[in-house]
Amino acid sequence: MLGRLNHVAIAVPDLKAAVAQYAGPLGATVSAPQQLPEHGVTVVFVELPNTKIELLEPLGADSPINAFLERSPSGGIHHVCYEVDDILAARDRLKQSGARVLGNGEPKTGAHGKPVLFLHPKDFNGTLVELEQAN
Amino acid sequence: MLGRLNHVAIAVPDLKAAVAQYAGPLGATVSAPQQLPEHGVTVVFVELPNTKIELLEPLGADSPINAFLERSPSGGIHHVCYEVDDILAARDRLKQSGARVLGNGEPKTGAHGKPVLFLHPKDFNGTLVELEQAN
Repeated sequence: MLGRLNHVAIAVPDLKAAVAQYAGPLGATVSAPQQLPEHGVTVVFVELPNTKIELLEPLGADSPINAFLERSPSGGIHHVCYEVDDILAARDRLKQSGARVLGNGEPKTGAHGKPVLFLHPKDFNGTLVELEQAN
Repeated sequence: MLGRLNHVAIAVPDLKAAVAQYAGPLGATVSAPQQLPEHGVTVVFVELPNTKIELLEPLGADSPINAFLERSPSGGIHHVCYEVDDILAARDRLKQSGARVLGNGEPKTGAHGKPVLFLHPKDFNGTLVELEQAN
């Protein structure tokens, strides 16, 4: 069931500084910043040969990243996103195992225009897990 | 410079339970547990099509994972590991940019038998970064 690691998301307090570091001394290819008001983030993609890192900066007062940065002001790894073939089948299998799906349990459209769900970190070793339907 | 994402490491308080979850409802291929006393961890690899997740359980009283689990008892994402072609060149470039290398600054042999270095999380948006020389 578990497919590719689509991305690792890192919350950053200062996107410009993070981009300068990844594009500079770390020598990675970095996309232009993209504002996603419906997700409350400005995002930059660090392109790696096999996956990508998403650098997330809060956008707006209601950003889901604000609370994270209050707890961890220098930033930190926010979530991992795994691809699945069938997000509803994956959800049902996980719910049956006792895992909690965040929100109302229905997939939303994620940053890549595909259906996504988030799973409760307490049920996954303290790790916020995003599932994205790849196809 | 920055190559593949070699792995994402997740610290877990109960490796058996984590393996049951990744192999069960998450439906991933999971390796047999491997004790690495010199790193103070028991590790299991979750094989994804493009990278891997390392589940780390503390091994012994001096395990570097113990302090992490004291702060985050349910576990959490511990570090990301990027591959580089030349670890000494990478280190020197990062040090020149002001980033701190952990330990004595010399590469050690990592869990995969290759030279590795860890970078200070405070210099990388709260993210503990491992560099591994891939070749």
